[in-house]
Amino acid sequence: MRDRYQQLVTTAPGRFLARRVGLPEPPHLRRHTPGDPLIPGPVILGGAPAGRLVKVVGPMLAAAGVAVRELGPRAEERPGGARPHALVFDATGITRSEQLVALHDFFAPQVRAVAPSGRIVVLGTPPEHCADTREATAQRALEGFTRSTGKEVRRGVTSQLVYVTPGAEEGVESTVRFLLSGRSAYVSGQVIRVGSAEVPPPDDWERPLAGKVAVVTGAARGIGEAIVGVLARDGAHVVCVDVPSAASELAEVAAAHGGEAYPLDVTAADAPAALAGHLRSGVDVFVHNAGVTRDRTLAKMDAARWEIVLNVNLTSEERINDVLLGENVLRPGGRIVATSSMAGIAGNPGQTNYATSKAGVIGMVRSLAPTLASRGSTINAVAPGFVETRMTAAIPLVIREAGRRMNSMTQGGRPIDVAETVAWFASPGSAGINGEVVRVCGQSLLGA
Amino acid sequence: MRDRYQQLVTTAPGRFLARRVGLPEPPHLRRHTPGDPLIPGPVILGGAPAGRLVKVVGPMLAAAGVAVRELGPRAEERPGGARPHALVFDATGITRSEQLVALHDFFAPQVRAVAPSGRIVVLGTPPEHCADTREATAQRALEGFTRSTGKEVRRGVTSQLVYVTPGAEEGVESTVRFLLSGRSAYVSGQVIRVGSAEVPPPDDWERPLAGKVAVVTGAARGIGEAIVGVLARDGAHVVCVDVPSAASELAEVAAAHGGEAYPLDVTAADAPAALAGHLRSGVDVFVHNAGVTRDRTLAKMDAARWEIVLNVNLTSEERINDVLLGENVLRPGGRIVATSSMAGIAGNPGQTNYATSKAGVIGMVRSLAPTLASRGSTINAVAPGFVETRMTAAIPLVIREAGRRMNSMTQGGRPIDVAETVAWFASPGSAGINGEVVRVCGQSLLGA
Repeated sequence: MRDRYQQLVTTAPGRFLARRVGLPEPPHLRRHTPGDPLIPGPVILGGAPAGRLVKVVGPMLAAAGVAVRELGPRAEERPGGARPHALVFDATGITRSEQLVALHDFFAPQVRAVAPSGRIVVLGTPPEHCADTREATAQRALEGFTRSTGKEVRRGVTSQLVYVTPGAEEGVESTVRFLLSGRSAYVSGQVIRVGSAEVPPPDDWERPLAGKVAVVTGAARGIGEAIVGVLARDGAHVVCVDVPSAASELAEVAAAHGGEAYPLDVTAADAPAALAGHLRSGVDVFVHNAGVTRDRTLAKMDAARWEIVLNVNLTSEERINDVLLGENVLRPGGRIVATSSMAGIAGNPGQTNYATSKAGVIGMVRSLAPTLASRGSTINAVAPGFVETRMTAAIPLVIREAGRRMNSMTQGGRPIDVAETVAWFASPGSAGINGEVVRVCGQSLLGA
Repeated sequence: MRDRYQQLVTTAPGRFLARRVGLPEPPHLRRHTPGDPLIPGPVILGGAPAGRLVKVVGPMLAAAGVAVRELGPRAEERPGGARPHALVFDATGITRSEQLVALHDFFAPQVRAVAPSGRIVVLGTPPEHCADTREATAQRALEGFTRSTGKEVRRGVTSQLVYVTPGAEEGVESTVRFLLSGRSAYVSGQVIRVGSAEVPPPDDWERPLAGKVAVVTGAARGIGEAIVGVLARDGAHVVCVDVPSAASELAEVAAAHGGEAYPLDVTAADAPAALAGHLRSGVDVFVHNAGVTRDRTLAKMDAARWEIVLNVNLTSEERINDVLLGENVLRPGGRIVATSSMAGIAGNPGQTNYATSKAGVIGMVRSLAPTLASRGSTINAVAPGFVETRMTAAIPLVIREAGRRMNSMTQGGRPIDVAETVAWFASPGSAGINGEVVRVCGQSLLGA
């Protein structure tokens, strides 16, 4: 399956437009299909001396059926054999800036060999957990490396930095699996923190949500529909929520994925109480995905446009969280995931209302994280960039094309890319990921 | 004085190029000249009910000779009289997302009237200092508003969010002055935290560094030369440091600003000791500005290119900090300011070495901040975007033009814009600003 840009560039005007602005054809991105191996080729694993993660990640990957080739520090040559599909580097042994050259020594000889849709993953120690300022400085420097590499390598190769709190080594598996797999096709240039938490041993990595109950708002179409599909694929029973006017689409989505439809206006005064009643046996995963836009420049924006956007995208979520937590509707070990947006990070002209609401979602996730942690639960946000939906299809062609191409994948993402990221947060294996905001934007150039 | 882009668009090929890519002529930016009033027109000041800053900032501005018009909450009309040059809104009274509509109510009727090179400043409470998650969420939402407004308003108008820790209200003056003045011409879309600190009463806001000793590395040209000029203008005696091969340029810069030249290779093994010896009577302001690039894609980068960039841009600064702090060369109340870069925030292809070093500078500043605070001192970083220097002049025209235009000011910045930001950090009035990274990028679209 090709995305719409790829469809476009196979038409005559599309080819003309692409050539006109000097755009190459975007690479095909490897995405996950059930039954696929974790990664279709070997992983080269290396590390700076005295790192604490090589010895954990190596056996972890081998047990997952991945061909792992371990490389000692300061290897100047790349090992022979099949083209690597991932370069994973444990940088936790780096305690001073002088030692950062180990990144160069590991990656420079190998980076060109990485297969299309390959993966670069650097593992580090969160600067706030470092022993001294020299170590914190060197560890913070890693971010400049992974973000630059993501912009440089192209060919659908993603690049990420994963900060692992000391003691949380075993909890890194769900994240390493996500990042190496096709599930993270459109996630690049991210910094992800894995903290300490009790991580239950996984039963089946292909159905981590078996037996769980999930709720998805805004489920009738677009990104919400894709989230329903992926959570159901991963084993969850999904309660699909959307406004009553979308009830027939909602019923179709629910039926297609063996879930149930629950039409509800999340902004209604009694919506939180109604949800609590409907979910009285409890919920494991709650996805705040309902969202609206009412774009206008600030000078032309009436108060109604401001208020509906803030209410749907932010306040209604806060009110629902109150019952999820206050009335223990969210089960122990539960997950809340909210949809933020690139606009909430970088701001966007004509969207002061939308960007304010989506920046607020980031605040909500960060400020609620300690409360969730105390219940063995988590709350996180996805921040989509340019994702091919009905909403983005309505953007004028040239602006749409610029939005699509201004990222390291040189194409728009798909709703499933956001959904896979939600599912990774929702997984029992991701208990150590809390208060995080992960962009699903192909490493968009736009940011804060 | 016009910048080089403006010179370019007055030539025939320049006009052709600008029209070709649909670029309007960039606005002229108001910059500060000694003797200028703080701001050339009235400031409209408003706030949500129960805010704690209107009553501090109003008298502060009035005492500084600014015409302040206070506006009650939910004012639907803009006051009559001259065009406002700034809209300042105290959002500290906002404790729930429903109250964010106060932003709309204050700004929507007035935003179009703001004069060119006008200012939008929103004052908030740092989310980490809020009483509960609802307040933290609403306060974090402010960032989406100011970043969107900065991208929307244009005409050289800047937009910032200033988070003021409860109790630090009186310490906000240096920051409010900086943001309203022409000193911050190229600073927009920033989030600045003002924390609690003992702020000495200012003697003369035009010469805040009178009697102080400052050191600037990389002082022979470009941004470093501009920093020397601004610190000297503000009253400091400046010790100008650069490599011995630039000694003659360095001597000229020092002479032009009444400072002294001190040729030194900051990467030399004995450089920190030599500096400590040279500065044995102490230093008040140390500016780590020396920096080099050695661009190559990672696959083509030799270890030497990596090492020199990391050494000059990061490790040498760490080694000098060791003597500044370990041997008490930095006087009580001292300031360290380091030059990071947009590349250190967003990453940049072909600059894995440079971006790693500049991301490390951010780590250095953040991790050293508590140590500095314990001495009544601060450490902060500026992160320049596209600034017109010899370095950027070497970029090929089309890429250079894109870099210049992809920001809310639609033009490149000048070295003095970075220098003014350094001087604001260096000011005794900025004692509450510590561990911050402020971009001088005209609100570049590029970010993380």
